[in-house]
Amino acid sequence: MAVYTHLGAEELARLIAEYDVGQLVSAKGIAEGVSNSNWLVETTQGRFILTMYERRIDTGDLPFFLGLLDHLAERDCPVPATIHDRSGGIYRLIDGKAVALIEFLPGVSPNAPTPAQARAVGAALAEVHLAAREFPLDRTDGLAPRNTLAILERCSSALASIDADLPRALEKGREVVAAWPDDLPRSVIHSDLFPDNVLMLGEQVTGMIDFYFACNGSMAYDLAVTHAAWCFDKRGERFDPAIGQALVEGYCDVRPLGDAERAALPLLAQGACLRFVASRAEDWLDTPADALVTRKDPMDFVRRWDFYVENGARVFA
Amino acid sequence: MAVYTHLGAEELARLIAEYDVGQLVSAKGIAEGVSNSNWLVETTQGRFILTMYERRIDTGDLPFFLGLLDHLAERDCPVPATIHDRSGGIYRLIDGKAVALIEFLPGVSPNAPTPAQARAVGAALAEVHLAAREFPLDRTDGLAPRNTLAILERCSSALASIDADLPRALEKGREVVAAWPDDLPRSVIHSDLFPDNVLMLGEQVTGMIDFYFACNGSMAYDLAVTHAAWCFDKRGERFDPAIGQALVEGYCDVRPLGDAERAALPLLAQGACLRFVASRAEDWLDTPADALVTRKDPMDFVRRWDFYVENGARVFA
Repeated sequence: MAVYTHLGAEELARLIAEYDVGQLVSAKGIAEGVSNSNWLVETTQGRFILTMYERRIDTGDLPFFLGLLDHLAERDCPVPATIHDRSGGIYRLIDGKAVALIEFLPGVSPNAPTPAQARAVGAALAEVHLAAREFPLDRTDGLAPRNTLAILERCSSALASIDADLPRALEKGREVVAAWPDDLPRSVIHSDLFPDNVLMLGEQVTGMIDFYFACNGSMAYDLAVTHAAWCFDKRGERFDPAIGQALVEGYCDVRPLGDAERAALPLLAQGACLRFVASRAEDWLDTPADALVTRKDPMDFVRRWDFYVENGARVFA
Repeated sequence: MAVYTHLGAEELARLIAEYDVGQLVSAKGIAEGVSNSNWLVETTQGRFILTMYERRIDTGDLPFFLGLLDHLAERDCPVPATIHDRSGGIYRLIDGKAVALIEFLPGVSPNAPTPAQARAVGAALAEVHLAAREFPLDRTDGLAPRNTLAILERCSSALASIDADLPRALEKGREVVAAWPDDLPRSVIHSDLFPDNVLMLGEQVTGMIDFYFACNGSMAYDLAVTHAAWCFDKRGERFDPAIGQALVEGYCDVRPLGDAERAALPLLAQGACLRFVASRAEDWLDTPADALVTRKDPMDFVRRWDFYVENGARVFA
């Protein structure tokens, strides 16, 4: 959450002039996105989000990410469309860094979602899955369970330094990977649909954002990721069954789950936990304890994982 | 430049409901302000800046700061008015922290100002000085030269660790304080009018913001601070005479300087440099070298100071 690069007013005005969006009126750096700089830009014609891709994102992936936004927005999913420049380009370069101009969508991210909101999010996720099936580009899931297990294996000797109870995630992870189903129905999936990445007005989803983990993958796995992200308190100590039920029901209202998908959900949810345990453990070990960035505790997802092991069959019945 | 506190959507909506500004539509944390958290808030009735006062700002000063905005906005200065809550309050408390809702103003901060922009800024500063003379509240200048010299004295043993050339600022500072004029015409002054704190559209000043150093003080000193802030490159190596001339001329078009003020400008500009050398040196020593915050080099203002010692009489003639 930061603005990593300073963009001067004159530079911004020159950039905006490359798009058919009117004159620059205002630009505020916004504290969103973990690896990009973002500005909320106002012109004489409207408001836009300007994103500068800083780290972690490969420019070669931008046609996938930005093309996906266009594909979904054209199919009436609540996703911001990419604004193309005067020559049709979806991104431009400033000092060697890629920047894209993206539609601004209203709404705020729910902090304490209600079941009605979770139902709407489930339905919106299913709509994205259906609409994305015909998206022509591909992107491999770099954070599939076998990959996230490999991340965790690399951290293994240091895991106990984070929490004495963390090393057992390795054995649990190996079991998840061994049992992982590879034949569930696939589409392009969001893979990171935390409440932060959803904008809502009341009970309506007005925006799904931050598709920078999107990839080809199992649709039911994406639902499981969303379940793990929405149905617990921050520390993963309390599961909210009403939220969980509404999320899955909302999803199934739009795209009913097949029997194999439903049966797999308890395991898929554990795979989701493995992924966030691994990425958080890696970030924790990479971040000095006294850095200004708050480190996210991997144990928050070890607790969710334990919950799914014990209650998954019942919760997803 | 950060958002220090997370405000949930529900908390924001409850806060906004305390004001007669319509329903919450969007809220983005923005990367502005060095010691406050700020959000760009949109409601069904307009856009606003929500500021949460985190550090450094004494709640007891808020009636001065926020009342000053109202006073100046009523007098057509390009300053954001404070939005009062339904019971007339200028700030509210959330979890013990003060928050204020402030008018949103269009415009962007110039990164490479032109002489025409500097002229407009000089004129706007003079308008603020004239309008603020009848503002009824008082606030002492905690960063007057004798106070900033005291800051520098406290850092003295460590100054050489920042730069071998920095300790000589102490002797120079003592000379400035000894010669400081206390009888120049006074008003409420902004005291920190860097380009970052000015919003412009083309050559028009649309907003002067961040009045959190405002205090009673010498108007000519405020012009000198603005001169030091606008007329050099970042490192203080190159002075731009056209910017400096336009700034002072724009000021004098609205409020002609008296003879004593004009004669004092070279010394006042050195006092401005003393102040930023001291505050930057203090911040530098307080900030770990590996912190994510970029430390500002006090030497940038030692170089400006040297320039004013050598050229001040000519520049301000």
